[in-house]
Amino acid sequence: MSVTRDRLVSLRRDLHRHPEPAWREFWTTSRIVDELEAIGVDDLLVGREVLAEGERMGVPDDTDIEAWFERARAAGAREDVLAKTEGGYTGALAVLERGEGPTIGLRVDIDALPREESRSEDHYPTNAGFRAETGAMHACGHDAHITYGLGVIERVKESDFSGTLKVVFQPAEEVIGGGKAVAESGHLDDCDYFLSVHVGLDHPTGEVVAGIDGFLAVQHFDAEFTGEPAHAGANPGDGRNAVQALATAVQNLYAIPRHQDGVTRVNAGIVEGGSATNIVPESARVAGEVRGETTELKDYMVERAVATLESAAAMHDCEVTVDVEGEAPSAVSDDELVDVVEALAHDVSGVDSVLRTDDLGGSEDATYLMRRVQDRGGKAAYVGIGTDHPGGHHTATFDVDEDSLTIGVDVLTGAVLELAASHP
Amino acid sequence: MSVTRDRLVSLRRDLHRHPEPAWREFWTTSRIVDELEAIGVDDLLVGREVLAEGERMGVPDDTDIEAWFERARAAGAREDVLAKTEGGYTGALAVLERGEGPTIGLRVDIDALPREESRSEDHYPTNAGFRAETGAMHACGHDAHITYGLGVIERVKESDFSGTLKVVFQPAEEVIGGGKAVAESGHLDDCDYFLSVHVGLDHPTGEVVAGIDGFLAVQHFDAEFTGEPAHAGANPGDGRNAVQALATAVQNLYAIPRHQDGVTRVNAGIVEGGSATNIVPESARVAGEVRGETTELKDYMVERAVATLESAAAMHDCEVTVDVEGEAPSAVSDDELVDVVEALAHDVSGVDSVLRTDDLGGSEDATYLMRRVQDRGGKAAYVGIGTDHPGGHHTATFDVDEDSLTIGVDVLTGAVLELAASHP
Amino acid sequence: MSVTRDRLVSLRRDLHRHPEPAWREFWTTSRIVDELEAIGVDDLLVGREVLAEGERMGVPDDTDIEAWFERARAAGAREDVLAKTEGGYTGALAVLERGEGPTIGLRVDIDALPREESRSEDHYPTNAGFRAETGAMHACGHDAHITYGLGVIERVKESDFSGTLKVVFQPAEEVIGGGKAVAESGHLDDCDYFLSVHVGLDHPTGEVVAGIDGFLAVQHFDAEFTGEPAHAGANPGDGRNAVQALATAVQNLYAIPRHQDGVTRVNAGIVEGGSATNIVPESARVAGEVRGETTELKDYMVERAVATLESAAAMHDCEVTVDVEGEAPSAVSDDELVDVVEALAHDVSGVDSVLRTDDLGGSEDATYLMRRVQDRGGKAAYVGIGTDHPGGHHTATFDVDEDSLTIGVDVLTGAVLELAASHP
Amino acid sequence: MSVTRDRLVSLRRDLHRHPEPAWREFWTTSRIVDELEAIGVDDLLVGREVLAEGERMGVPDDTDIEAWFERARAAGAREDVLAKTEGGYTGALAVLERGEGPTIGLRVDIDALPREESRSEDHYPTNAGFRAETGAMHACGHDAHITYGLGVIERVKESDFSGTLKVVFQPAEEVIGGGKAVAESGHLDDCDYFLSVHVGLDHPTGEVVAGIDGFLAVQHFDAEFTGEPAHAGANPGDGRNAVQALATAVQNLYAIPRHQDGVTRVNAGIVEGGSATNIVPESARVAGEVRGETTELKDYMVERAVATLESAAAMHDCEVTVDVEGEAPSAVSDDELVDVVEALAHDVSGVDSVLRTDDLGGSEDATYLMRRVQDRGGKAAYVGIGTDHPGGHHTATFDVDEDSLTIGVDVLTGAVLELAASHP
Repeated sequence: MSVTRDRLVSLRRDLHRHPEPAWREFWTTSRIVDELEAIGVDDLLVGREVLAEGERMGVPDDTDIEAWFERARAAGAREDVLAKTEGGYTGALAVLERGEGPTIGLRVDIDALPREESRSEDHYPTNAGFRAETGAMHACGHDAHITYGLGVIERVKESDFSGTLKVVFQPAEEVIGGGKAVAESGHLDDCDYFLSVHVGLDHPTGEVVAGIDGFLAVQHFDAEFTGEPAHAGANPGDGRNAVQALATAVQNLYAIPRHQDGVTRVNAGIVEGGSATNIVPESARVAGEVRGETTELKDYMVERAVATLESAAAMHDCEVTVDVEGEAPSAVSDDELVDVVEALAHDVSGVDSVLRTDDLGGSEDATYLMRRVQDRGGKAAYVGIGTDHPGGHHTATFDVDEDSLTIGVDVLTGAVLELAASHP
Repeated sequence: MSVTRDRLVSLRRDLHRHPEPAWREFWTTSRIVDELEAIGVDDLLVGREVLAEGERMGVPDDTDIEAWFERARAAGAREDVLAKTEGGYTGALAVLERGEGPTIGLRVDIDALPREESRSEDHYPTNAGFRAETGAMHACGHDAHITYGLGVIERVKESDFSGTLKVVFQPAEEVIGGGKAVAESGHLDDCDYFLSVHVGLDHPTGEVVAGIDGFLAVQHFDAEFTGEPAHAGANPGDGRNAVQALATAVQNLYAIPRHQDGVTRVNAGIVEGGSATNIVPESARVAGEVRGETTELKDYMVERAVATLESAAAMHDCEVTVDVEGEAPSAVSDDELVDVVEALAHDVSGVDSVLRTDDLGGSEDATYLMRRVQDRGGKAAYVGIGTDHPGGHHTATFDVDEDSLTIGVDVLTGAVLELAASHP
Repeated sequence: MSVTRDRLVSLRRDLHRHPEPAWREFWTTSRIVDELEAIGVDDLLVGREVLAEGERMGVPDDTDIEAWFERARAAGAREDVLAKTEGGYTGALAVLERGEGPTIGLRVDIDALPREESRSEDHYPTNAGFRAETGAMHACGHDAHITYGLGVIERVKESDFSGTLKVVFQPAEEVIGGGKAVAESGHLDDCDYFLSVHVGLDHPTGEVVAGIDGFLAVQHFDAEFTGEPAHAGANPGDGRNAVQALATAVQNLYAIPRHQDGVTRVNAGIVEGGSATNIVPESARVAGEVRGETTELKDYMVERAVATLESAAAMHDCEVTVDVEGEAPSAVSDDELVDVVEALAHDVSGVDSVLRTDDLGGSEDATYLMRRVQDRGGKAAYVGIGTDHPGGHHTATFDVDEDSLTIGVDVLTGAVLELAASHP
Repeated sequence: MSVTRDRLVSLRRDLHRHPEPAWREFWTTSRIVDELEAIGVDDLLVGREVLAEGERMGVPDDTDIEAWFERARAAGAREDVLAKTEGGYTGALAVLERGEGPTIGLRVDIDALPREESRSEDHYPTNAGFRAETGAMHACGHDAHITYGLGVIERVKESDFSGTLKVVFQPAEEVIGGGKAVAESGHLDDCDYFLSVHVGLDHPTGEVVAGIDGFLAVQHFDAEFTGEPAHAGANPGDGRNAVQALATAVQNLYAIPRHQDGVTRVNAGIVEGGSATNIVPESARVAGEVRGETTELKDYMVERAVATLESAAAMHDCEVTVDVEGEAPSAVSDDELVDVVEALAHDVSGVDSVLRTDDLGGSEDATYLMRRVQDRGGKAAYVGIGTDHPGGHHTATFDVDEDSLTIGVDVLTGAVLELAASHP
């Protein structure tokens, strides 16, 4: 077995066919463990072993977790992995110990998005027969990320690398829910260097960004409005209408004033409410997020969002509970690492453009891991691997140009080897 | 077997335990057929046989129908009934032919609401062990209505009644979806007299309303907004936000101006939209209804509602499709029948108050059947049987005082017998 | 001088040309006093003399009052009347004392609306040269009402009437502001009979309504939102936007749920806010009203409206002060009086249709006076005099068919004489 | 007469006491002309002479202009200046011709804001007795700008300057209304160098910004909604409510999605509507603005704003006319000029911090003038003069630290002299 393009493509397609959303990556974790055992690593932690107790965020309800758990089992997930991940404790950490040298961390994220994939014949995965089978979708390229992680381990193992390599397969990035739990597990505390990676981000195939910055701090929220049902024809005045509260809240969330200090964002991503056309809705829910270019801007948005949700409830005589859970801070890539990636990327086959830096303009809980390492004296960088993607990230027609699979593995492996070689 | 209070209570509780929402009353139809066969009727039509082709309204999607179909099968529904109701063609019509005399129709509705029943120990069905097992709920007393229908047939059969009695067990009242299909089947066209019945309506046990009026004309709507997804952090300006369109629509639907010509109603009963917190929502849906004291007022509300939905979509650069399906006209109870019911109700055991009339203040697709009979020269009335109900109609704590079961059977049987006896 | 059609028309047109809004009827009061002195009455109270201290509602600010005061002076209002009405204490009460007999009250209202009159040549007052000169408009027919009051006094004086007649020319009906202050003055406490009158109300010329009912209870509100200004380009995040609060409030005011117990109304009649396009608005105001078929329904609307205004302020981090001032209760016309008016109206020249009763569907502070009299044992009725009016009440093209002037005077004079004649 | 601190302070306070809003700076122009004549300039253009025909934007209505015109006359404005500025053609252009050398332009803006100044004793102008007397307010420091313009002319005249200096006193900056008309007059087309200046902008006294960038492109809009009035109690269903349309529009204007390509802004700065609490509002108006970091972003905002306004009207069955008038493009300061200002500012007395550049974060119609000069080969820069200001720009407590008056005159005079001296 060696890291050929065919192997990477085959691996990525298999993962693409079996997407699982945050904290439900049971089959995915099992598949990763299979590969890691085939490669042979020195240490392998799975599920609960990788996550700090009580630090998971954005965990779905038990019924939902169980449904995906059973689906994974039916799809052939290993019982030993299922045992370690039951209850939504997904993910894995693989360690290669190769003598003297620095400890180098690499983080890839493994979850998919809860959305349908395009059925259009113009959409390559559909056309080529590896469209998602689960109802979820790898619409952000994490199938490529997992492939990077496995490819790098395999390549480093085959090399003359000296030092320790830790590759973490992190769950629940899309809900900004897994980064903190992995960070606080302490497994990466001894890293001298730490790399994260993302594919795409509107960079074409052949372009590499050595160190991405401009992470937006983010905060998720989940608000449940509770009113009072009534027959909408016979007793409308007796109801307390949770959907009216929801609508008022949504309109005003998007209208939170823009701020002079920098970028802010708000999204009411999921709404639902009511039970029948002729019942005044007694309950409604909105789940969303706010972001800010700095933590202060994010906090400004959180404060206004909570006030908006609470006032909307009061206006319609409803109650509301607002959970704000799932957040990530900002972070900055270290020049020392960026220098290394920038220098070597030029020599990687297929790379024709290297940007030193670019703004993410989004959020990432890799920042928890970067800051954890940096706080302990290590260096961190977030590397971008360009890929031609027909649809935007998170849309039904997102796809990865498979030429970027080898490029990513080459750049990251190169960085690991160079960091080990040049370590003082 | 005879129509004792115990038998009615037992029947009602069994039905209460197995509620099924509109067009999914598979187990319920099967249970009704069982009873009718036990009683013995002269003609029995089931499912498709009772419904005019292409006239069902508010039919759910196939997946949903199939899920309830399989649930009914698993719960023991008869295969012969399932065969006749497959695809959501539920309901039944029983006929007693007893020689010379008028044709008298009685309509009871059989569907439940898609809502959870209370789990409180203060809620009698929970406490007494017959809480709904299906996730739906008989929160409008149709379990009592079915019991009335069966009880009346049994009692009339045992009597010296001369004439023809047709009892229709109508599906899908709650979505105003079944009345028209039954009316247009023509099975009731030969009725000289026609009775409908409802339990409760804020009248206490022991009170009877001889002829309810004040039906609001109603129109259901179901609007699907379609926009464009985008990453909410990285590309918010590229999205076209269907949830913003939804929120604007909902706020403005409730704000359609009141009208001087009479009662109007509006309800956005069900909303849903979006897929993930970090995706600009590309789709959203609102299902609701408008009502008016007259058809003109209902039409005024429909016109404003559609303009509101379409303008909200345009405002947010989204598309919208608005289905307006599921409607019912107004209707009036005929004095001739009201006289009969009013006179006899005073003598029914347990009745201590008889109102000649009262306003429904809601809507009913029984009006299709009433007008069908009236248009052909028959007389129609809508009878109310009071019952102490702790929670309002359509709420989680609605319940029927079982003393009203015998009262309802007695009043309706009495009316049938009196109408036959006094028929010219 | 006698009450000819020409004289009534001339009087009405002069009043129409000089409309003055609530509590600013200085010229109007002066004109009324002129007429009353010409007729010759036994007692004449003006301005402060007619109003209970501290009971006026809906009084505009001093600057506004002064501007109209000076305009009236410039237009020739009498200084003795100005002295008694200064500060916005307008109106008058005329008394005829004619020996033994009952005390009979008649109330007419005298204020205009703060709106422009149509300039269309199709609008009769414009075409005929008596369009309003003040910027306000008699768009509700109070010019006809004043004419009724004066005409009735003159006709009764010429008759053989025995008893006491009190005609009150009440200010500030349009803001529901004057009725309570007149009622609490006590001047009408000794009335055995009390009549109010309104022209039009969608009844054609020749139709009379003997006793109008269906008054909606009403409550005015005036809300001031205060936020914080900021440069809209440079510092939008530092503002607290009073106009956003206003917009949220207005949208949700109209969306207060309809109520099953009867008619409700809401109107945000006047809005204003902000100072410049590039300043985040620091202040905004909405003035409006709610109504209900009963006092309970009006209170329901007030409660929801206040909650809506306060929650909208909180949502946008603004303050709000809500004044609820200007209200009127419901009232009912007494059958005894309605009988009298109904009987005699048939014989009045020009009357071809007499309705015993009809619903107002609006509000009136005459109800304060009616209830005051009724509470002390008197009888009250509210009479409607039909008139063909091309535009609706309160619109720019409202006008009165001048044939209804003599009809109104005849009906009301007839009622006064009959009540005196038949008094026990 | 010489340019002492006392003289600058006295001048600024007199201007501060007489603020006049855009296109109504009659007294102000007269005062400027007085000063220019006292100084003695070689050419002096006033009012219409400075403005391209038909290019003024954001001009108020005639009544408003006339009121301020008469106020200026009453306050002692010169009749010759009034004659040249009548109808709202305000502003002036002074020229010093001093032999060979470059042509250097300087633009200062002269209008105030339509807002009340603080009456607090903590507010220095109030405390020191020069609070605004007109109801408007110099809340953006244009009183200091005029003082700069006059001080620079006087100082340059006293110097050995060789070349031509043109100082334009531009009207109507606050409505983004005057810059284009001055630019298109062509008077500045021959400038080799062009300077604009602003005081404050959150920079403290003693700080100078050599060349401000980051101008937001801006577009004003003014939307008039027209519906149909109706009595709010009796006929609410007959109205078409312009205030509901307004409220829907305002809520959704602020909710136009943020854009990933850069800064956007929106403000509904002025709203008004309706006429009486009991009339369904037939008309309403919102005036506001949108901005964007680039012209493309501004256009995106304009497109969404117009769609929002039009859809809100359609939703409530109203008409709307949207005027989009008053706009300014982006612009960039030229390095060549920035170098000069940066170098000399360090040596100015009172300056302790020199920033090469900073973002305005707002909009300015000076950009019309900058681009006009740049398009013809000249160089332009926008200089910032710090001042401690207790309240933010455009707020009631804004004030200028008068120490910044001499600093500004020194920096700008220094730049003019240096540019002339070093001109090739």
